[in-house]
Amino acid sequence: MSTDTSAIVAAGFDPAEPEDAVAATAARVSNWGRWGPDDVLGTLNLLTPAKRLEGAACVRTGATFSLSQPFDEAGPQHGWRKRTNPVHTMLGTGHEALDGEFPHGIGGADDVIAMPLQCSTQWDGLGHIFDHGHAWNGRNAAEVVRVEGDLLTGIETAAAHLAGRGVLLDAGRALGDARGELPDSYPITADELDEIAAGQGVEIREGDIVCVRTGQYARTRREGWGGYAGGPAPGLSFTTAEWLHRTGIAAIATDTWGVEVRPNEFEPAFQPLHQIAIPHLGLFLGEMWDLDGLAEDCAADGRYEFFLTAAPLRITGAVGSPVNPIAVK
Amino acid sequence: MSTDTSAIVAAGFDPAEPEDAVAATAARVSNWGRWGPDDVLGTLNLLTPAKRLEGAACVRTGATFSLSQPFDEAGPQHGWRKRTNPVHTMLGTGHEALDGEFPHGIGGADDVIAMPLQCSTQWDGLGHIFDHGHAWNGRNAAEVVRVEGDLLTGIETAAAHLAGRGVLLDAGRALGDARGELPDSYPITADELDEIAAGQGVEIREGDIVCVRTGQYARTRREGWGGYAGGPAPGLSFTTAEWLHRTGIAAIATDTWGVEVRPNEFEPAFQPLHQIAIPHLGLFLGEMWDLDGLAEDCAADGRYEFFLTAAPLRITGAVGSPVNPIAVK
Amino acid sequence: MSTDTSAIVAAGFDPAEPEDAVAATAARVSNWGRWGPDDVLGTLNLLTPAKRLEGAACVRTGATFSLSQPFDEAGPQHGWRKRTNPVHTMLGTGHEALDGEFPHGIGGADDVIAMPLQCSTQWDGLGHIFDHGHAWNGRNAAEVVRVEGDLLTGIETAAAHLAGRGVLLDAGRALGDARGELPDSYPITADELDEIAAGQGVEIREGDIVCVRTGQYARTRREGWGGYAGGPAPGLSFTTAEWLHRTGIAAIATDTWGVEVRPNEFEPAFQPLHQIAIPHLGLFLGEMWDLDGLAEDCAADGRYEFFLTAAPLRITGAVGSPVNPIAVK
Amino acid sequence: MSTDTSAIVAAGFDPAEPEDAVAATAARVSNWGRWGPDDVLGTLNLLTPAKRLEGAACVRTGATFSLSQPFDEAGPQHGWRKRTNPVHTMLGTGHEALDGEFPHGIGGADDVIAMPLQCSTQWDGLGHIFDHGHAWNGRNAAEVVRVEGDLLTGIETAAAHLAGRGVLLDAGRALGDARGELPDSYPITADELDEIAAGQGVEIREGDIVCVRTGQYARTRREGWGGYAGGPAPGLSFTTAEWLHRTGIAAIATDTWGVEVRPNEFEPAFQPLHQIAIPHLGLFLGEMWDLDGLAEDCAADGRYEFFLTAAPLRITGAVGSPVNPIAVK
Repeated sequence: MSTDTSAIVAAGFDPAEPEDAVAATAARVSNWGRWGPDDVLGTLNLLTPAKRLEGAACVRTGATFSLSQPFDEAGPQHGWRKRTNPVHTMLGTGHEALDGEFPHGIGGADDVIAMPLQCSTQWDGLGHIFDHGHAWNGRNAAEVVRVEGDLLTGIETAAAHLAGRGVLLDAGRALGDARGELPDSYPITADELDEIAAGQGVEIREGDIVCVRTGQYARTRREGWGGYAGGPAPGLSFTTAEWLHRTGIAAIATDTWGVEVRPNEFEPAFQPLHQIAIPHLGLFLGEMWDLDGLAEDCAADGRYEFFLTAAPLRITGAVGSPVNPIAVK
Repeated sequence: MSTDTSAIVAAGFDPAEPEDAVAATAARVSNWGRWGPDDVLGTLNLLTPAKRLEGAACVRTGATFSLSQPFDEAGPQHGWRKRTNPVHTMLGTGHEALDGEFPHGIGGADDVIAMPLQCSTQWDGLGHIFDHGHAWNGRNAAEVVRVEGDLLTGIETAAAHLAGRGVLLDAGRALGDARGELPDSYPITADELDEIAAGQGVEIREGDIVCVRTGQYARTRREGWGGYAGGPAPGLSFTTAEWLHRTGIAAIATDTWGVEVRPNEFEPAFQPLHQIAIPHLGLFLGEMWDLDGLAEDCAADGRYEFFLTAAPLRITGAVGSPVNPIAVK
Repeated sequence: MSTDTSAIVAAGFDPAEPEDAVAATAARVSNWGRWGPDDVLGTLNLLTPAKRLEGAACVRTGATFSLSQPFDEAGPQHGWRKRTNPVHTMLGTGHEALDGEFPHGIGGADDVIAMPLQCSTQWDGLGHIFDHGHAWNGRNAAEVVRVEGDLLTGIETAAAHLAGRGVLLDAGRALGDARGELPDSYPITADELDEIAAGQGVEIREGDIVCVRTGQYARTRREGWGGYAGGPAPGLSFTTAEWLHRTGIAAIATDTWGVEVRPNEFEPAFQPLHQIAIPHLGLFLGEMWDLDGLAEDCAADGRYEFFLTAAPLRITGAVGSPVNPIAVK
Repeated sequence: MSTDTSAIVAAGFDPAEPEDAVAATAARVSNWGRWGPDDVLGTLNLLTPAKRLEGAACVRTGATFSLSQPFDEAGPQHGWRKRTNPVHTMLGTGHEALDGEFPHGIGGADDVIAMPLQCSTQWDGLGHIFDHGHAWNGRNAAEVVRVEGDLLTGIETAAAHLAGRGVLLDAGRALGDARGELPDSYPITADELDEIAAGQGVEIREGDIVCVRTGQYARTRREGWGGYAGGPAPGLSFTTAEWLHRTGIAAIATDTWGVEVRPNEFEPAFQPLHQIAIPHLGLFLGEMWDLDGLAEDCAADGRYEFFLTAAPLRITGAVGSPVNPIAVK
């Protein structure tokens, strides 16, 4: 799969110089210091109580959608950097329940799980990515994220925040094929995001949680993950960094492994938009969300906004978390 | 800590005959067949879209509360039945981020977790407890919950459902000491639940998710978990089974290890109310929730209802799930 | 990779009827009852103290060889049936050791691991495989191997036994290519095992632990594991079942994923020799051993016998165990 | 349990100044540089092939002893620093084996484990403990032991080495009560080690693997672990550091949680002998070994030497490993 450099070239970047592009972009969009030196929330500062009123006002039918992919061995991981699919095992079953270990005929089953926090539908926390050793707000990454976990911006700091107005941008339907799926390596640009919103009749506002559907997960369900979920995929162009900043959204999530287009638009490169979004914007990124059912419903009724609660597990010091996002329309 | 049998004796049960009490109660409150032979949702059938409209209408200020306890090694588990506290470890830190393994100065950290699904703030799924080998809806537990997981009522079936109107009943404040804490072994009765609701000026309605605060977690935070979270605790009396049925609530959660009073009111006994609630009512039980911050806010403004989203992780076949419940007022 | 049926056809089996072949072979070689109804050791009964004297007498130079493959993320697993490579993570590092959490300048690091017990160099215990619901010695598998583990023949019963005389049969060197490697799907027959032993000038005796090197691991090191370690491989023909019985060896191990030739010689089939060896012979099978260094040494000095200690971890109820077998020559 | 300072006071140390004692002792016994700047084996350099001949010559009866405690939920851990007991779960059982998922009646069970590498019978590797940020051989701990593991002295470097002559010193029988058990907080001195050896008629020689039985594990089996295995225990006095150096032993193991006496002899202090033994001597320490069965046999026949194979799992980068040590007499 070849790299699509059209968007970054149009924006004036040299595809062979990702480091320059990252530095120049970071300088333009940085939120460092915007919420004070002690901030641990980043763009979640923009997800205010008022946004939750706005979100609650979107509830019209009460229909709910889980935006989580299944957590099981059929998931996208193949062991890269110790990222496996979840290993869920039982500590009891209905067979053993009949054995009378407990009194008065009660029986039960427990279970355990071992999983990378980045194994399936997830949030990247603010301690997940660094730029030249700098974590969110300009901090020294080595002081913040240690072997004990993220001492400052652990995902627990976001535990109560990720509920508000959600907006779906269905890029797959707007720009993709007859099935509503974008091809791999397709970089979605800021102009396209604006056009999709306009076409859907929905407005992107400060503090929103934006969900961008590319259609890749629909194709994956049909055809399998192939070699690895981190392979080629449609996704956000690096050039959307300024859109992410300008709109003031609180978080963004996609139905792909890594939010941004793969292969990345520079060469060599590894997730350069992450390098802007997390440490410089303080933006929460959601990955591997299942947006297909929600998208069907939005296409049917023409309403692309909803109340979205996407609460990470309150794991002390985690740099990410599995999540089961719930959209209520 | 001695067993308090007052409530079950008043209800005409023999404290030495839990099996009779369970059988008689199950016969009175059973929901088997109520939603057809194939049902996998139990009382979540009562949590309708209309309930989410009702829940959304409770949102007035947009303030949010995470009802999750921290997931870390300071948690309540000590290894009983292989239930440990979560073991969260890092696959990268800010130190190593400086090493230049990746291009253009990007660095990052991942993490993994190994944990029992019942280790902290959680939902019990419908496959968690059986009565004499019968699972929810009268099914043969041995056919439903196997070593691969719950083949029929795995927690993933509930993934999209647990959002709606939440109601807090602050039993600790209503019945407890000056700190708003009930003593261990205190059995909360149905009459008391009704009195608390009346005193708070809130109505319990069909399809609600009810949160009962006993105050034990507040004490635990101050004094530590002691030997084990499964030790003595205030909680629901076995005699509330009919209240749980009559009210038609969709789910109930407490700030204790096991929802029901400990020691259990019969002798010997092990969680007899679970034996009714899960396999016979099909009721979702939430355990080890942190209701203290929410309770403060409710006491302050006198509003005990809110929009509650408590989405389990979508773990295929799980009989329970960690959860970060989010209340929005 | 096509199935090689030559050996089973020569032995009079119908490649389309594995069930008949298994039944007929089991009838001929069964050890059920041989060591009494309560036996939990199987062929380890033949690994007597006298064998350890015999093994110790093989020690001439004191050179040692670890026969274990590395346990890390570069291993052979890709998630089939939740079999992942081991996930090893740190609870401390040298960075944090400088922080002064502990007194007088002491610092340290711990680590944790999550892994399938069958993930790399391992022993299959007697509870690992069943024939039509029968476990070793004719027991009902459902009563022996439960969700709590193997209640009777857990690997802990073998904890002190697996030390004795080891013999290497280097099939790769004897039958393979210039590199000493057999091609995938090559079924090694009983006659070939005898010829290899004769050619090496070593005798196979009752109670021996036999190591069969095919050379596949050497190729794997050079070329990678490919799709999955459970793919095509050289290995024992199903027809060696009687050799395994007749020789009275205590255990057998290979440098492949599954001891027997892959694809298996029947179609359809899944590890039919396991179905004889474990439940009927009570034979311990070792898989994914690294025999290359030992084989070099044996080829150099012409001595193919040694003292072998291959102690499983004493994991209560386990049906297998990782192992670091140590050969001393 | 009060600290017994008698041994360190007799040796001229100030119980309030552990840092001085550590520094002075390290200066006297350091092995830094002894085996060159690149050494990763420490005192395993002294465990030569000749020692294995010596060990093999100790084999007289062929009787074997597993020196491993059981790995299960009844173990000594309670979660301190995320150290839990092992969590062993099944991926299949004998029930499900009857379901016909596989052809020709084969069925089977797999299992998984999650555990700290320091949870039960184990070796401490050379990356486990540091002195003021210095790892074995004077290296910068921060460069050696990182989040990826021990890059230089990972336990895999020792994989083939830990087999040789083992010697039991039964301090419990020699110095303890009628049951052969030393009381908690009893510091075993170098003179006592020499006296025990003399009394047993066994010589401690360079390159030996020495096992010191205190009897604490026998008491633990009878009375339970109590609060934590890391609580009070008999063990080596800090003052044995010079004995460990002078004798030139390759490794030492005890039947206690932490080799050295607990509470430690200084105040405040944490495992000061480790701080000498691992980073300065390069000595492998074995902990929580079960020496009781072996001790019975040695007492019966008066022979306290044996062939000992104690092979760590070959976990790349691990700073310790579970082990099932096998003594053959």
